[in-house]
Amino acid sequence: MFFVIMAGGTGTRFWPESREKLPKQFLNITGSRTMLEETLARIGPILDDRSHAIVAVNCAHEQLTRELTSGTGCRVLTEPVGRNTAACIGLAAMHIRLIDADQPILVLPSDHFIARPGEFAAVLRAAGEAARDQAIVTIGATPTRPESGYGYIELGESVDAVAGSPAFKVRRFVEKPDVETASRFLASGNYLWNCGMFGFTARTILSEIKSCKPELFAGLERISAAIGTPRYQAVLDETYPTLESVSIDYAVMEKTRIPLLVFPGDFGWSDVGSWQAVYELGYGSQDEVGNQVTGQALPLDAKNNLIRSTTGRLVALLGVEGLAIVDTPDALLVTRLDRSQDVKKFPGLLKSGNRDDLV
Amino acid sequence: MFFVIMAGGTGTRFWPESREKLPKQFLNITGSRTMLEETLARIGPILDDRSHAIVAVNCAHEQLTRELTSGTGCRVLTEPVGRNTAACIGLAAMHIRLIDADQPILVLPSDHFIARPGEFAAVLRAAGEAARDQAIVTIGATPTRPESGYGYIELGESVDAVAGSPAFKVRRFVEKPDVETASRFLASGNYLWNCGMFGFTARTILSEIKSCKPELFAGLERISAAIGTPRYQAVLDETYPTLESVSIDYAVMEKTRIPLLVFPGDFGWSDVGSWQAVYELGYGSQDEVGNQVTGQALPLDAKNNLIRSTTGRLVALLGVEGLAIVDTPDALLVTRLDRSQDVKKFPGLLKSGNRDDLV
Repeated sequence: MFFVIMAGGTGTRFWPESREKLPKQFLNITGSRTMLEETLARIGPILDDRSHAIVAVNCAHEQLTRELTSGTGCRVLTEPVGRNTAACIGLAAMHIRLIDADQPILVLPSDHFIARPGEFAAVLRAAGEAARDQAIVTIGATPTRPESGYGYIELGESVDAVAGSPAFKVRRFVEKPDVETASRFLASGNYLWNCGMFGFTARTILSEIKSCKPELFAGLERISAAIGTPRYQAVLDETYPTLESVSIDYAVMEKTRIPLLVFPGDFGWSDVGSWQAVYELGYGSQDEVGNQVTGQALPLDAKNNLIRSTTGRLVALLGVEGLAIVDTPDALLVTRLDRSQDVKKFPGLLKSGNRDDLV
Repeated sequence: MFFVIMAGGTGTRFWPESREKLPKQFLNITGSRTMLEETLARIGPILDDRSHAIVAVNCAHEQLTRELTSGTGCRVLTEPVGRNTAACIGLAAMHIRLIDADQPILVLPSDHFIARPGEFAAVLRAAGEAARDQAIVTIGATPTRPESGYGYIELGESVDAVAGSPAFKVRRFVEKPDVETASRFLASGNYLWNCGMFGFTARTILSEIKSCKPELFAGLERISAAIGTPRYQAVLDETYPTLESVSIDYAVMEKTRIPLLVFPGDFGWSDVGSWQAVYELGYGSQDEVGNQVTGQALPLDAKNNLIRSTTGRLVALLGVEGLAIVDTPDALLVTRLDRSQDVKKFPGLLKSGNRDDLV
């Protein structure tokens, strides 16, 4: 079984901790290790051959990724530019095809949080087994609230369980709904959160890319022809930027005629999309009034705040509530937690203010 | 005319900018210079002999004070420990008595804000003239709001104007009133804010200290006997700590039988008692939504905040309102402006938490 860990994101939602040179997957936002390391640790128990774990990153982060993964035996696959998940998965599949086109590949984001890794591993194992039989599989997380920030998967008919894990046909993918619709989804019990995790063989996914996105496939084939030759990097650098930038969901999942299976899992998933999400996950030391602290803080009549200081400085709070305070050596963020989805605006504002040094 | 600038305060209300080693009077909180320098600059126009300006400081701040005042010609008088205003004024008067016991002395705090220094200087000049005639004079600021954080002076009958400045007998001093009483004071037009500024000759004030506080006077006399001798510092260090710690208001002003005169002045006075007071004074650049910034800030949907950064770091704000954010190299404060009177609790909390390094 192969794993493709997609670590090409250039997240801006965790500014000022996240920067262009250090996106979210390289931060220890939800644990003592970086999110990428946590992701790799999570698949460890079901990884037979460590070289079968492939981390796909932007070339700007190659060195950092090699340092973080040194000693793990996993491979690093670089993208010259970000071209969304279809191109990334296609490129990885081209490489894997040369090793074994019929082994299952599980594609996972590198920057998600999983509360119960044991349950997660069991679902992954089952999904991988199902992918071996030319199916396209996806993993859906049991929703726990009417979240309007996630996409949903509507369950179709039940199929035979795989390795003890129940599975369903996918009826449809639903884009982020409004809260009312999300509440209906939650109440029905017939919808799962789309975690952006997929399984298939190289043969299956490349055949689907070929039929759904022939031009994308043609570009990937040109790159594939250069794999293992001295021309590879040049061809990659020349061709990859010309590939269509489209998500695997849109390019394949929502169009394919191959039956899609979904494996539900109640493993405490979060895509950790904002500082508020970090607060809700409750990582870091928490006092009895809901202040969650990484670093040193001195709260006085202050509650339900997220304090993260990587500078060693003391953060004193007086009378404040529901804030995120993120302290880094060259920039400090003070935001209302319930506004933290807008933190991603700061890098753009800084660029237009000629403060690229802080982006 | 002599000036005694009392700079012995160990303010904690401006933590983390103010520290034990750097109290408020040594900070540039309301201008580009320190409050002490602003105070000295303010008396410049009415100072005939620059050696007649005496800055009284705790010995811990002697070096700093000498650096700040080098080139001004003013003298530095050190106190081995803080013993409140009666002892401080008494010590200064003992020194001045040796030069000229019958010249007026104006005693001023070093850490107040004056919006209109020209009007202030005119009132000072008049008060000094009146003090020359064995009166004890005080200066009262015209109240502009029903402030419960200040003491008040009730006006008695009007006396002849001095140098064009109207003057009144003092009917009584009133301790900080409640808001209702303060509103009544404001409406009556018969009360002024007690600014803690006094005028008298050395002969007058020492005579009053002698009759109101004979033990304090005796201690001061012991010190005075050593002035100009090699024993001075030893006598001062031995005697000064034994003096009663009492304010000049309580020790003399509220008890003396000498008529007290008060000179009203509408010179935009504030004792700058909290970060909120600093915000209200409006120093620093102000944007169109009321964010007042010293340093670099990037506010997004944030208004009416005070941002002070002495670290060169960018402070990004999102969705917050009515906060003070004070950024220093080793400590950061985030407080609601309307709670900032409690900032003074932090130094104590830090001491009990073994973080004296931050106090």
